[in-house]
Amino acid sequence: MPEPATKAEPGGREFFTTRTVQQARDGFRPRRRTPAETVPLERALRRVPAAPVIAPHPLPGFARSTVDGYAVRAADTYGVSEGLPGYLAVTGAVTMGAVPAASVSPGTAVVMPTGGALPSGADAVVMIEYTAEAMPGTIEVVRPVAPGEGVVRADEDARAGQEIIPPGRMLRPQDLGMLAAAGVTSVRVHARPVVTIFSTGDEVVAPQTQTLRPGQVRDATAVALAALVADAGGAPVHGGIVPDDPAALEKELREALAASDVIVISAGSSVGARDETANVVSRLGPPGIWCHGLAIKPGKPTLLAECARGPGQHGAPGEHGIPVIGLPGNPRSALVVFRLIGMDLVRQVGGCTAAPPEPSVRARLDRDLASATGRLDVVQVTVSGGTATPVFGLSALLSVLTAADGYIVIPEEATGFDAGTEVDVTLYR
Amino acid sequence: MPEPATKAEPGGREFFTTRTVQQARDGFRPRRRTPAETVPLERALRRVPAAPVIAPHPLPGFARSTVDGYAVRAADTYGVSEGLPGYLAVTGAVTMGAVPAASVSPGTAVVMPTGGALPSGADAVVMIEYTAEAMPGTIEVVRPVAPGEGVVRADEDARAGQEIIPPGRMLRPQDLGMLAAAGVTSVRVHARPVVTIFSTGDEVVAPQTQTLRPGQVRDATAVALAALVADAGGAPVHGGIVPDDPAALEKELREALAASDVIVISAGSSVGARDETANVVSRLGPPGIWCHGLAIKPGKPTLLAECARGPGQHGAPGEHGIPVIGLPGNPRSALVVFRLIGMDLVRQVGGCTAAPPEPSVRARLDRDLASATGRLDVVQVTVSGGTATPVFGLSALLSVLTAADGYIVIPEEATGFDAGTEVDVTLYR
Repeated sequence: MPEPATKAEPGGREFFTTRTVQQARDGFRPRRRTPAETVPLERALRRVPAAPVIAPHPLPGFARSTVDGYAVRAADTYGVSEGLPGYLAVTGAVTMGAVPAASVSPGTAVVMPTGGALPSGADAVVMIEYTAEAMPGTIEVVRPVAPGEGVVRADEDARAGQEIIPPGRMLRPQDLGMLAAAGVTSVRVHARPVVTIFSTGDEVVAPQTQTLRPGQVRDATAVALAALVADAGGAPVHGGIVPDDPAALEKELREALAASDVIVISAGSSVGARDETANVVSRLGPPGIWCHGLAIKPGKPTLLAECARGPGQHGAPGEHGIPVIGLPGNPRSALVVFRLIGMDLVRQVGGCTAAPPEPSVRARLDRDLASATGRLDVVQVTVSGGTATPVFGLSALLSVLTAADGYIVIPEEATGFDAGTEVDVTLYR
Repeated sequence: MPEPATKAEPGGREFFTTRTVQQARDGFRPRRRTPAETVPLERALRRVPAAPVIAPHPLPGFARSTVDGYAVRAADTYGVSEGLPGYLAVTGAVTMGAVPAASVSPGTAVVMPTGGALPSGADAVVMIEYTAEAMPGTIEVVRPVAPGEGVVRADEDARAGQEIIPPGRMLRPQDLGMLAAAGVTSVRVHARPVVTIFSTGDEVVAPQTQTLRPGQVRDATAVALAALVADAGGAPVHGGIVPDDPAALEKELREALAASDVIVISAGSSVGARDETANVVSRLGPPGIWCHGLAIKPGKPTLLAECARGPGQHGAPGEHGIPVIGLPGNPRSALVVFRLIGMDLVRQVGGCTAAPPEPSVRARLDRDLASATGRLDVVQVTVSGGTATPVFGLSALLSVLTAADGYIVIPEEATGFDAGTEVDVTLYR
């Protein structure tokens, strides 16, 4: 961790240094990783292997036919053609799943199903299409085969001791298939990072609340953040709604530090509530606040910190602090920032070294978009027929996010995009 | 359903009509849909709403400040400037989450936190940055505001009765947030389609089997198919490994028909086993086999059918048949076909009318790829620095799939791609 940000404007509204999104991605890199645990294969989809997985045996383990036909000695087919077929005596048949009883000697062939084990003596399989029964017990072969043709070698899918699955990449469906083929039925994976999610603000009430007083809003952020945490491979824990009371928030956060791998706080929306959240986080102990204020729109009042687990909770040497992410109070800004910054942090803590690819599409902007240099802008868009249309609306509106198909990013160095520019739209799924 | 395919080559190896992938997508459209069920919001991620979700109340439900500042009557600020400030008496302050006690009358202002409820009498909020305390209890305002400025209207996020979430699209994280904001804490969604997965073949043994006889292979397909089914929103059920015994397979399939929304069979790899699977499926009842043979590489021996649930199991009128997908015996081909054909079927049966976007990237091919016209080719590739490199290998090799970052599709009408062609790579996640 680089040194914590210092007060940039003592007495000012923003106590801590504002950073760019790029600086945050490069510089805020908590070292904490979740420990490894063992999970059965059928529950390992998208889990992150903690170590390379090695093939214990060669795969498929035996030379295997890839076609229906006849196991032969390739040399017996050299020079054959439609006009000058070769003749081989059929001395047996291979049964699926069984050790071949027959063997192939010069001048003979054995009936071979796709996937069957190659009999001893054979070094190739000639496809049934290039054979015909000449007389009972004898076939004619009209095309030559080379040694190895029509056959998968015993270690062609994997050699014994070969790495079949890399660490750090979420397991994909086909990876599970490869592990099953190798007889690996449980995997050492990083534990899912426990991400405790707090909502703060005297105005925030539970989604179950049917009748609101004017001034009250239901907690929209927690359930959406929990979904993003799950998508990032984390285990979301709902910390609950904390009123605008610094002592109450500090107590909740200290308790959560002991049981979490990451903490996310959607802070109150007013500047006073946001500053109180920062003050509380700054009291949680070193290394402390890394930035308060991110050059992103929407999402400026973002706080990034790393906090010690506290006395008696440090545990093993090498224990690192817990990342704490303070998000803006309004749900839309909070979700934008968590997608851009938070999900990668959760993946990192969970041992994921390569983020899975996200859906995206190229589209032409249908109007000019202005942006301030030095600030990253996230613009929600709909996409239709190759055209991206911005969904405008106040950052307080969730409906802008639900109406959008995806978003475009105007990077820090740009002053905007002209209408007609081809842009990358990251698509929601 | 169009009429079942008829025998194209009686006595030949391929009993039923071969179709293209496009024909299958357009023509094989089972009408069965899973019924609706109610799930709590926190378990609704990626579930498919069975009906539009309507906002029961306007959102946010009250006029709400979007900034920290002062609630005012806009008319009181007209014409003010840095040189000629307006002066307003501060008559109170709004508290977060509370009904405003103060109201705004001409010449007065009320302290306003971001997110607070606008007091009666006010029609705008002036940002604190454009005010200063002139003397205790009085502020000066240096910029005019228009009515509505700094304010979210009471129904700006949603009107009462407005559709806030469409049916047929998997719920995304932000959709859950919108539902929570609206106080909708449970959702009517399509039940997850129950997809029973069978593996067939005398050579196939459970992944747990540590020591294989030559000729035996572990079931790699079932666990990978289960993962793809889950990704498509289905509930995979492992039907088990069925030996190459038509009577046993028919019994298993008949039982599964009664309890499944989709059935998937990875058929034996030899031609005899594949034909036996088709024969068994053809006995399961109308409408029956739609195609046996798909113009795709790898994956030609694919079977698509729709089967009645059987006597006594038809239930309600309008009950439709159960889609049955027979996949090629080798795991790699099976997974390719299930991605291209099967996942969409599972989504359809589960009520999903718009498939979620898939990750993809444009890349330049680093070599020529040949393909036969009329056949769709799926080529596994790695992608690095904008270049797509095909991963070659026999279709029997799973390692080709685990080594790949994604795949490209050479469509039916193409005869291949030249080196340097920019292609769309669908990326695995």
